[in-house]
Amino acid sequence: MSYFDAASGAPLHPVARQALQASLDEGWADPGRLYREGRRARMLLDAAREAAADAVGCRPDELVFTTSGTRALYDGIAGALAGRRRAGRHLVVSAVEHSAVLHSAAAHERAGGTVTEVPVDRTGAVGPDAYAAALRDDTALACLQSANHEVGTEQPVAEVAEACRAAGVPLLVDAAQSLAWGPVDGDWSLLGASAHKWGGPAGVGFLVVRKGVRFAPQGPVDERESGRSAGFENIPAIVAAAAALRAVRAEAVAEAVRLRGLTDLIRARVPRLVPDVEVVGAPERRLPHLVTFSCLYVDGESLLHELDRAGFSVSSGSSCTSSTLTPSHVLKAMGVVSEGNVRVSLPPGTGVADVERFLDVLPGAVAGVREKLGAPVAPDAPGTLAELTVDAVGERCPRPVIELAKALPRVRVGGEVTVLSDDEVAAVDIPAWCWTRKQEYVGPAERGHGVVAYVVRRLV
Amino acid sequence: MSYFDAASGAPLHPVARQALQASLDEGWADPGRLYREGRRARMLLDAAREAAADAVGCRPDELVFTTSGTRALYDGIAGALAGRRRAGRHLVVSAVEHSAVLHSAAAHERAGGTVTEVPVDRTGAVGPDAYAAALRDDTALACLQSANHEVGTEQPVAEVAEACRAAGVPLLVDAAQSLAWGPVDGDWSLLGASAHKWGGPAGVGFLVVRKGVRFAPQGPVDERESGRSAGFENIPAIVAAAAALRAVRAEAVAEAVRLRGLTDLIRARVPRLVPDVEVVGAPERRLPHLVTFSCLYVDGESLLHELDRAGFSVSSGSSCTSSTLTPSHVLKAMGVVSEGNVRVSLPPGTGVADVERFLDVLPGAVAGVREKLGAPVAPDAPGTLAELTVDAVGERCPRPVIELAKALPRVRVGGEVTVLSDDEVAAVDIPAWCWTRKQEYVGPAERGHGVVAYVVRRLV
Repeated sequence: MSYFDAASGAPLHPVARQALQASLDEGWADPGRLYREGRRARMLLDAAREAAADAVGCRPDELVFTTSGTRALYDGIAGALAGRRRAGRHLVVSAVEHSAVLHSAAAHERAGGTVTEVPVDRTGAVGPDAYAAALRDDTALACLQSANHEVGTEQPVAEVAEACRAAGVPLLVDAAQSLAWGPVDGDWSLLGASAHKWGGPAGVGFLVVRKGVRFAPQGPVDERESGRSAGFENIPAIVAAAAALRAVRAEAVAEAVRLRGLTDLIRARVPRLVPDVEVVGAPERRLPHLVTFSCLYVDGESLLHELDRAGFSVSSGSSCTSSTLTPSHVLKAMGVVSEGNVRVSLPPGTGVADVERFLDVLPGAVAGVREKLGAPVAPDAPGTLAELTVDAVGERCPRPVIELAKALPRVRVGGEVTVLSDDEVAAVDIPAWCWTRKQEYVGPAERGHGVVAYVVRRLV
Repeated sequence: MSYFDAASGAPLHPVARQALQASLDEGWADPGRLYREGRRARMLLDAAREAAADAVGCRPDELVFTTSGTRALYDGIAGALAGRRRAGRHLVVSAVEHSAVLHSAAAHERAGGTVTEVPVDRTGAVGPDAYAAALRDDTALACLQSANHEVGTEQPVAEVAEACRAAGVPLLVDAAQSLAWGPVDGDWSLLGASAHKWGGPAGVGFLVVRKGVRFAPQGPVDERESGRSAGFENIPAIVAAAAALRAVRAEAVAEAVRLRGLTDLIRARVPRLVPDVEVVGAPERRLPHLVTFSCLYVDGESLLHELDRAGFSVSSGSSCTSSTLTPSHVLKAMGVVSEGNVRVSLPPGTGVADVERFLDVLPGAVAGVREKLGAPVAPDAPGTLAELTVDAVGERCPRPVIELAKALPRVRVGGEVTVLSDDEVAAVDIPAWCWTRKQEYVGPAERGHGVVAYVVRRLV
């Protein structure tokens, strides 16, 4: 079995396991108590905070431990927005933030605030100028991830932080995906992170609030973690989280070089091994261990099942793998193909043999799914029809794109195919398919009852 | 060393440790993923939920895992209040709830809601009739602990639940202190609990919402735990929490009988061994393992230090042991002495020899602290003065009571002593001292600048 989904969560690092074991005996008591067991717990907590702060590059009293990365983001955003209530109620986020940030933004809007989503380019990156332009006089807070969780693209945090400083707006960085690789550059104001992303246990997040940043914790609070993270501290897990971060950092530079070699291999080889594939995300400014590609005419769930059967655990931003029918908001914001999406994120220690085996297995897995779905196998010569309408109503991703791909060869160059579809994913994948295949996307037209007519003109 | 503070948190149960170890290997992955590691994690999570629900006495789909007992209460109260928004914005709580409930109530008031605190009697119990009388047409939610965390008094949950049903108001029960001993009786609607109270790891709470209870999670939410508890599930800890609960329940009946014998011993012996002590909390309807007493003329912090040096870890509801200068809201609501307060809560397995050793050590520890503070040692014959004023302004607990106790013998029976004090604790402890010593508390009078004159008439 090869686990290639480190971006979801890494198995417990051996150093974290040792630290956890040791502190189960020493760190179970209430660190707020005066007796021996409480004092021992407090010492462990203080030491873990120093180690964590050292890895983040902040002061220990700027860092509190939360119960998850999600909680760090929820509480960090709510506290920073409330602390800057007088400045206004405007929040800036990128369009490709983690759902924890976008859910916080949605909650802020429900409570009467306003939100601007800064768009990204086709690699998933925001432009520093576009980000700066979104800052307003009433902007209370800006949020930007250090690197994207689905496609690995690194964001220009230092430049955006500079623009935020100039505008007097605090910047909160979601560093969940990158903190294992190094501290976040730039003059940011708040930071959130999640320990199970770097081989710490689940149940531990970091929230960093730089001195001088206005911050007002929201909801009920207690006296724990400077009043910024309520509930009895899980000290054994906190100690393990800090130990794991220190351990992965010690190997980070060498491991980044090694894993970047492996993801470069995947980036280069997959388009040669599998037809109709789009590798997505920034080719250079990206996380070393993560690579994402989308396979046309494939549904993500079937492909993940095939890969799982072959011993590979990967994840997907395709709609077909989640309980909702909407495609990944990240791929949608990037305007890239979302169907048949595969995210490979290599845990530290992954060997080249594992990756070679994955590359051996992938083409057959994709071909098998395509065959079952009756996907087109080779481009035909131009047909003779001037136009053609395909009814794909009631069909789900990737069927509408498969039908389009099968119909287009039947029209002559310059002719049009209209695809009728009520699948929300088609709105992302049909334009993205056209971009990939160098065909012209003419546009959508509403037909009522949720049905949209997508018009495509054959160019080649 | 004897750890007698199980009510704060218990060391990890051996069964929990085994379960944690095993599930570190099997339960670290994202249970929302389709691949093998995700499916294994999901199976562990489902099994833990069934075990937990079985112990609580609810359906598995009524129970979600939270990141702490505090979080279960925060989110349970907020969600239930929002779900019943149309009924009104009135919240009923007892005056002796855990601070997590009272902090939630305070947040609700800040947001424009109203709160009624139901008072308790001298044993710390609410009266079912008084509780029922607090329910109004606009009451959205009522909260009651199953048993008090500071004095062990069991609350009449079943009777209060019945009154709430009759009034159409959901009752949320904070079962943190009692769930180890058995399920909560009665027809309650919501329940919160905390695993580290029963030997599970920190970082796991339960929130139970009965089917049919209106519930609207507040703030940002994600898809985890039915949308009721955000963030990546800490499955190894959850599995350990459920295993620990099952393990302590298997021994609960026998262990309750045994520990009740030991706490009965403390209840009976302490007043004979130590002069000027009040044992507080209900003598019969109480948790089996918990006993609380207050020692006059002693500050809690010094006493805890003495006991810690002698090898005993206990906690205190005295103001002197916390960073604030207000006494425990529980002891205050009960109207009992708060100074020199000691809570003994025995973990399962505590032996009679440990308790005997504690009873050997306690009298000397109390006497030592009293001697340092110059506390009165024996009652004097009635003096001759008609009245006497003692200036204790600037003195902190337990000084004002010590000064009162030293002054009272100097007046004749029927005479009065006035104590001037700016210590908030005196407002609790002087009346409580009078009650304990069968003297008459005439009342307080404001003197300005935070100074209050407490008037006491000598009766005996």
